[in-house]
Amino acid sequence: MSEQELGITESKEYATGDWYAEVVQKAKLADYAPMGGFIVTRPRGYALWEALQDHLDGWFKETGVTNAYFPMFIPESFLEREKDIVEGFDPEVAWVTHGGHDELEERLAVRPTSESIIAPFMAEWTRSHRDLPLRLNQWCSVVRWEATETKPFFRTKEFLWQEGHTAHEDEDEAWDETMLRLDQYEQLFEDVLAIPVMRGRKPEHDKFPGAHTTTTVEALMPDGKSVQSATSHYLGTSFAEAFDLTYTDENEDEQVAHTTSWGLSWRSLGALIMTHSDDQGLVLPPTIAPTQVAIVPIWQEDTKDEVLEYAEEITDELEEAGISVELDDRDERNPGFKFNEHELNGVPVRFEIGPHEVDDEEITIVHRPDGESIVEDREDIAETAEEHFDDVYEKLYDAAEENLEENVREAESPPEILGTIGKHGGYVECGWCGDEACETVIKDEIAAEIVMCPLDRDEEPVHDECAICDDEAEETAYFARTY
Amino acid sequence: MSEQELGITESKEYATGDWYAEVVQKAKLADYAPMGGFIVTRPRGYALWEALQDHLDGWFKETGVTNAYFPMFIPESFLEREKDIVEGFDPEVAWVTHGGHDELEERLAVRPTSESIIAPFMAEWTRSHRDLPLRLNQWCSVVRWEATETKPFFRTKEFLWQEGHTAHEDEDEAWDETMLRLDQYEQLFEDVLAIPVMRGRKPEHDKFPGAHTTTTVEALMPDGKSVQSATSHYLGTSFAEAFDLTYTDENEDEQVAHTTSWGLSWRSLGALIMTHSDDQGLVLPPTIAPTQVAIVPIWQEDTKDEVLEYAEEITDELEEAGISVELDDRDERNPGFKFNEHELNGVPVRFEIGPHEVDDEEITIVHRPDGESIVEDREDIAETAEEHFDDVYEKLYDAAEENLEENVREAESPPEILGTIGKHGGYVECGWCGDEACETVIKDEIAAEIVMCPLDRDEEPVHDECAICDDEAEETAYFARTY
Ligand SMILES: [Zn+2]
Ligand SMILES: [Zn+2]
Repeated sequence: MSEQELGITESKEYATGDWYAEVVQKAKLADYAPMGGFIVTRPRGYALWEALQDHLDGWFKETGVTNAYFPMFIPESFLEREKDIVEGFDPEVAWVTHGGHDELEERLAVRPTSESIIAPFMAEWTRSHRDLPLRLNQWCSVVRWEATETKPFFRTKEFLWQEGHTAHEDEDEAWDETMLRLDQYEQLFEDVLAIPVMRGRKPEHDKFPGAHTTTTVEALMPDGKSVQSATSHYLGTSFAEAFDLTYTDENEDEQVAHTTSWGLSWRSLGALIMTHSDDQGLVLPPTIAPTQVAIVPIWQEDTKDEVLEYAEEITDELEEAGISVELDDRDERNPGFKFNEHELNGVPVRFEIGPHEVDDEEITIVHRPDGESIVEDREDIAETAEEHFDDVYEKLYDAAEENLEENVREAESPPEILGTIGKHGGYVECGWCGDEACETVIKDEIAAEIVMCPLDRDEEPVHDECAICDDEAEETAYFARTY
Repeated sequence: MSEQELGITESKEYATGDWYAEVVQKAKLADYAPMGGFIVTRPRGYALWEALQDHLDGWFKETGVTNAYFPMFIPESFLEREKDIVEGFDPEVAWVTHGGHDELEERLAVRPTSESIIAPFMAEWTRSHRDLPLRLNQWCSVVRWEATETKPFFRTKEFLWQEGHTAHEDEDEAWDETMLRLDQYEQLFEDVLAIPVMRGRKPEHDKFPGAHTTTTVEALMPDGKSVQSATSHYLGTSFAEAFDLTYTDENEDEQVAHTTSWGLSWRSLGALIMTHSDDQGLVLPPTIAPTQVAIVPIWQEDTKDEVLEYAEEITDELEEAGISVELDDRDERNPGFKFNEHELNGVPVRFEIGPHEVDDEEITIVHRPDGESIVEDREDIAETAEEHFDDVYEKLYDAAEENLEENVREAESPPEILGTIGKHGGYVECGWCGDEACETVIKDEIAAEIVMCPLDRDEEPVHDECAICDDEAEETAYFARTY
């Protein structure tokens, strides 16, 4: 790759969409597949997904979840058993109609979500209250045939995700489960991806089809748009009723189970890339970066041996401490090129090692997000590196938090909502009567929508009146443009 | 589950197929999906797949492989670019013809294997010899619409696997890669699954479509049938030519790359279950068992507290040593029921702890495969447990090895081949002229086929003449019935 090809040419501030597409491709995270709506996830991109899985899957397992795998196809008749599901997903389903040279008797949906194939098995496996709670999860891909522009990780017809499905004895337990998974999603964003999020509830008209309540974590991107980053649904008894998911309680009475489902997709990677990266390329927090430290030795002919030896010692020491490090000792590239490349690839911390560092038993440490350069002692370098990881994490988190805190504004009329979102983006908080028609008024003007309401249904609305129709406000709505 | 439901009713020896299906379902490894040919992999079954992935994926990464993810759909025109692929897989492809309510302009194959979608991207990413070797792997599911009876893990229309795809500068490197992956598959069977395997090469007429050479590891099941357990293909330059996968060498000359692909599917789980399990249920080696030790406390009312306390201490000690242990302290089940259940589920080692064990500071250790019972000191119990794991592993491996060693027999005529396989099963070794027609003679009689030839093409055939047609033998063939 030439120096020129290495550079990001688009501006994050002025051409966010083009800039994002360029970062994704030049940092080798993903490429566009030949079929519109599909992408190829390259090793650097997939490594991010694997790191995210490691965190989340561990937390799931610690809290009683077991992984399973259900067929990728769902017979049409199964989809039709829960009417909201079929109405909600029918327009987006990819259909398999032929196997080999033969037409199938019943066409098969490529899973858009798996409630319809998982619930009947949960029903089969559940007899008594002793079989509950039942907590299943699968990591897989799903297909939704949306006819929108492809945006890697944000908008693709096929995407990777996890989908959790659980059954419980009563509403309280199911609701606790719903919130536990929402907490874990929030934890992933706050503690691993360095992105603060807002927790909320989707308005009634935007719930998951068939759900009683859909909860969400929303992340605000630097361009002022909100990303629905993960959702956790309390499904009530509607799926259990549709699929006969019942159990006998302690008194041998037949009861209907309460179910939940919850999912996080690779949109979370989109949010990660979009939030932290800059005009030099990808920026990653050390918590998820496949390479945490790039060591770039800087030598002349006569200092090469000592510099390399010193760099190798440090590499070994970091590796022994479990730090992921790359010693970039390529002969054919100069240090400047290497700096640019590791910046493009989002390596959070760079060690520069030249003859001075060797003589003084020091190391020059550079932070990817802001280029801050600090000279540190050679001694206890692994510990020092961890401290710098924390510093870099904090810088990224603080910037994202500042963006979020500065961009929640109140409004009390349609012009105020429209003006505020038009000028600043971000969230606009207002009183809302609960009527979808009032959202439509705004949506038709600037494609902003109600991304959430407060989790607590009894919370007093921020204003007494609906900002759109002036009727009594039932709750607070958060309007935003979305990805 | 009642006592009755817990028991396996079929006999491994006399009704292998029914017995296998019963073990898979009663040990809760998998269930049949509503569509013929599909299964639901339950948590206990999926945990085996995860454990296997942990081993193999680690070895792949240590040897230069990175994971990626390519679309699950392949446009028909892409499949057609390599003629052997389209001829080989066309009869088995599941076709997506509709997205939402619209018919697609070009129908999409649900991937039966991914060479046709991966090779074009490898071509795009490869410019110079510096970009090689390029080693990609993906864990995913594939669909092959075969119209055979469903046999969980062995025969399903959708199955889980990994597929590796690599590109190299020349034949030597590509051949080394092919053999490295075959070695790793062999290692998985020998060191993790406790199954000795035969390494070989598929006959020309049974190669992977478009491959130069297909290598295989074959495992002999206790019923005398061979399982093709994993394959590694040297593809030569045919895929590289079809997809323009070229590079500039050190002299700036354009060269065609040499490629490989290699895959292992959940058939390996089928082989695992089939090889070791018995009429009491599942048997697993401790290397892959999700639960390695089940501790069953045996108490009366007056000894309950001391027995439980002792059992809990031991549980903690094993867990601290990284051993996966389940303390079965359920009140509502008696020890006998628990013994049966852990046997059914294939827990390799059981600890029995009663008042005697507490008094004498001992533990009674029982091996799942043969019921051997040994009293051990309480001290250093984690270390002792590891020793028993080795013993159990050895017992399983030795039994499988004995089965393999006793069941390779020579034959020099069709009646001898047919008689030997008919009577003993196993492998029949014979001279072969290389002509598929000679295989057909045998296949038509007893559904046995040539499962492999020696890896070394120059190896002298075991006999001078083809056992079927009496022409000069070109190589040795191994006939066997297969799964
Ligand atoms: Zn209103
Ligand atoms: Zn012959």
